[in-house]
Amino acid sequence: MKKVLFATTALIATGGMAAADVTLSGSGRFGIVYNSALDGAGQSKTKIEKRMTINVDGTGSTDTGLDFGGRIRLRSDEGDAASSAASANVWMGNDMFRITVGNTEGALVNRIGYFQGSIGLTGLHWANVSFNMGSASRFILNTYSSRGNAGDVVRLDFNVGGFGVSLSSDSTGDHLSNGSEDGIAISYNFGDWNVAAGFAKNANNSAVSATERDMFSLSAAGNIGDFGVGIQYSDLEDVASKVVLNGEYDFGQTTVAAFVAHTDEDTVGSAGIGAAGEETEYGIGFTHSLGGAVLAGGISRNYTDETMADLGVRFNF
Amino acid sequence: MKKVLFATTALIATGGMAAADVTLSGSGRFGIVYNSALDGAGQSKTKIEKRMTINVDGTGSTDTGLDFGGRIRLRSDEGDAASSAASANVWMGNDMFRITVGNTEGALVNRIGYFQGSIGLTGLHWANVSFNMGSASRFILNTYSSRGNAGDVVRLDFNVGGFGVSLSSDSTGDHLSNGSEDGIAISYNFGDWNVAAGFAKNANNSAVSATERDMFSLSAAGNIGDFGVGIQYSDLEDVASKVVLNGEYDFGQTTVAAFVAHTDEDTVGSAGIGAAGEETEYGIGFTHSLGGAVLAGGISRNYTDETMADLGVRFNF
Amino acid sequence: MKKVLFATTALIATGGMAAADVTLSGSGRFGIVYNSALDGAGQSKTKIEKRMTINVDGTGSTDTGLDFGGRIRLRSDEGDAASSAASANVWMGNDMFRITVGNTEGALVNRIGYFQGSIGLTGLHWANVSFNMGSASRFILNTYSSRGNAGDVVRLDFNVGGFGVSLSSDSTGDHLSNGSEDGIAISYNFGDWNVAAGFAKNANNSAVSATERDMFSLSAAGNIGDFGVGIQYSDLEDVASKVVLNGEYDFGQTTVAAFVAHTDEDTVGSAGIGAAGEETEYGIGFTHSLGGAVLAGGISRNYTDETMADLGVRFNF
Repeated sequence: MKKVLFATTALIATGGMAAADVTLSGSGRFGIVYNSALDGAGQSKTKIEKRMTINVDGTGSTDTGLDFGGRIRLRSDEGDAASSAASANVWMGNDMFRITVGNTEGALVNRIGYFQGSIGLTGLHWANVSFNMGSASRFILNTYSSRGNAGDVVRLDFNVGGFGVSLSSDSTGDHLSNGSEDGIAISYNFGDWNVAAGFAKNANNSAVSATERDMFSLSAAGNIGDFGVGIQYSDLEDVASKVVLNGEYDFGQTTVAAFVAHTDEDTVGSAGIGAAGEETEYGIGFTHSLGGAVLAGGISRNYTDETMADLGVRFNF
Repeated sequence: MKKVLFATTALIATGGMAAADVTLSGSGRFGIVYNSALDGAGQSKTKIEKRMTINVDGTGSTDTGLDFGGRIRLRSDEGDAASSAASANVWMGNDMFRITVGNTEGALVNRIGYFQGSIGLTGLHWANVSFNMGSASRFILNTYSSRGNAGDVVRLDFNVGGFGVSLSSDSTGDHLSNGSEDGIAISYNFGDWNVAAGFAKNANNSAVSATERDMFSLSAAGNIGDFGVGIQYSDLEDVASKVVLNGEYDFGQTTVAAFVAHTDEDTVGSAGIGAAGEETEYGIGFTHSLGGAVLAGGISRNYTDETMADLGVRFNF
Repeated sequence: MKKVLFATTALIATGGMAAADVTLSGSGRFGIVYNSALDGAGQSKTKIEKRMTINVDGTGSTDTGLDFGGRIRLRSDEGDAASSAASANVWMGNDMFRITVGNTEGALVNRIGYFQGSIGLTGLHWANVSFNMGSASRFILNTYSSRGNAGDVVRLDFNVGGFGVSLSSDSTGDHLSNGSEDGIAISYNFGDWNVAAGFAKNANNSAVSATERDMFSLSAAGNIGDFGVGIQYSDLEDVASKVVLNGEYDFGQTTVAAFVAHTDEDTVGSAGIGAAGEETEYGIGFTHSLGGAVLAGGISRNYTDETMADLGVRFNF
């Protein structure tokens, strides 16, 4: 027997008792992906892309107005032997303050516009993310994991007016005195604009002081007439710095987005880029609304001069 | 706090927005299974059977009437260390056309009545499935996996009137140019009757041309008065052919079902049957409605002359 | 799109059809845990605690009034690489009789008050559980596993008036004639009081008769004025016996709970306690209602004279 959940807020009075619910939401996508790098014997440059995501969210609030909740995500990609169930985060707070514990973004990823300029159906090389510098720092910062665990993050968020501050630490969930990424980030919203800055000590979670690397990032994004524009900059100690510019424009049901990114290694090869010590990456993509689903595609070029492209549909439920 | 989903279609208007929902459904069963083959030292011919299944279905539709969705299944059997979450499939289409990507049936399993004549609580030897020939081809075709992944299938379904065609390929979700089962199947419904035929190239997913084996299958099923009857036939290149006849009869709350199957090896031993080169398998079972749950049981004999039997209850939610 | 499940029983008529539903519920908690035992090089005595639990319950009933159902639990703790999906149990029965199959408590854990006197946010050493004697028998009895499988338990429960009997066996879900914990337990409720007793043959699931150990347990709990009190006793053959006394008192929104436990080894070292051959364990904790969430904490001392303490919040949804 099929069950249908109501796609609207329940209005049934729950009397004096504190409200608490478990809700389901999710998304799906499929399409085709091209990657020029996969040109070896027995390899195919194209593959089918498939993803399904289900979010299981528990939420509630106390009589005194404190909200609480938690999330477990189910995720399935093409090529998986089975769906994954990501480690949970749990949280408590109100409009001004929240603590989140578990599999969640660190302070920087929570505040800074690292994902500005994401393109295509799948994100392709994710070269638009300023903390992805060459091969040395790919998704180095604490980032929510849809399949695993960001690493036992504890994050505190404060918001007053348009101003916000986040503090985070990771590697907190074991009885080990191991290396921890400790971050602070601030953000400010005014009108259509958002600016943010953050600093992470030991962004690479090194257990040895000598090899700790700190990261500093800035971002700004907003609208100029019908254009959306953004900039982000990250510097990883002794590795490299990267600046990313992005823009997008809406033509009715269609949006076109593009980015260009430039990485400068601190010493040649320090970010895995190679001989030149610097590299420019870029990408362009589009989305077209199907009125409940979206057609999306894009093409990008990364620091190894390889090309990725994709095309497909995605939808939410 | 317990939450209750409504066992009816939601009637709340969602205005102009496209509808999208996540729904849960499932089933359970338990009972006892006997298997004469398990007669070694330290073995027991009987065991307790237990299964629980939860389907997590995301569905929606666009303003233009295109439907989309996806499914993740949770499954737990007796003896499991934990429940499994099967890889997802996602789909999009309408009444005439649908594309399904991921963990899903191939064209043949989607159209042909391979599961006609399934008996008992658990299916026992599944000797009624015509593509199960001896030990050589057990569940060889792309079949939805409740615990894992059918293998990154892409399937296209077309339906007009009672006529339907499906096309499928697998092994599409990686960047490898590996062996693929490519299938086509057609079906036609008229009154209480259904006939179907299909052909799979490289049904055994061989990466080497020389060992590719093609499969051809036919099925028909319908009603003659109070009797339901069915026939299916499969031929796997260089291995064997198998024909299965099945019938069932309803006595009020009770249904009795039976099948007889005959396998002919192409050369003696080519399907793992052994000396005779041919074998007859058969089974009989019943279901009795408990008005919301079902009592079910059966007994079957397979190509190794072993006997399985089961008895138990199953129910849906 | 977010979906909200109704936190009340559905009142929509389902006509003559048997009712069946899948419901979601769960809980979360986070806080800090101290453990004096973790004082080695590179270790930290404190860690962050995080847990999220989601119960997926399928339930229904037949036209004749027989209820049925099943449960799969999702669980995520701090330090996990991913969330776990526990093996399911399925059940059928009515007010007087129920059979439960799969990942479920054995007869003893189902009837006896082993968890009387649980303290703190997390339970700390769980030294209040009388079948936890030293290191030899930690969670030795069949106990529902929130992450894995109790071991294919079959349990029968009978309830008439305040009187109840449970019978159970385990290791039933494979075709092996291996060692099985077979248990019987009885309980009786009168007014605010509950008493229970149980016996488990081969509580340690030994496959060899010579090393089988039987367990016998008793418990009683109830209220004396504003005080809640309990006692439990367990004896594990050739290992040890343990008695636990617990009490609690409610001060409005705050409850204080404490226990003291004493273990006597049958021979010195038989339960892993060490030189003395006997040991006293104790703990004290509190909960304070936040009106929908709970602040909880505690401190306990175990048989190795180590101290654990915790403090945090927990909530249900």
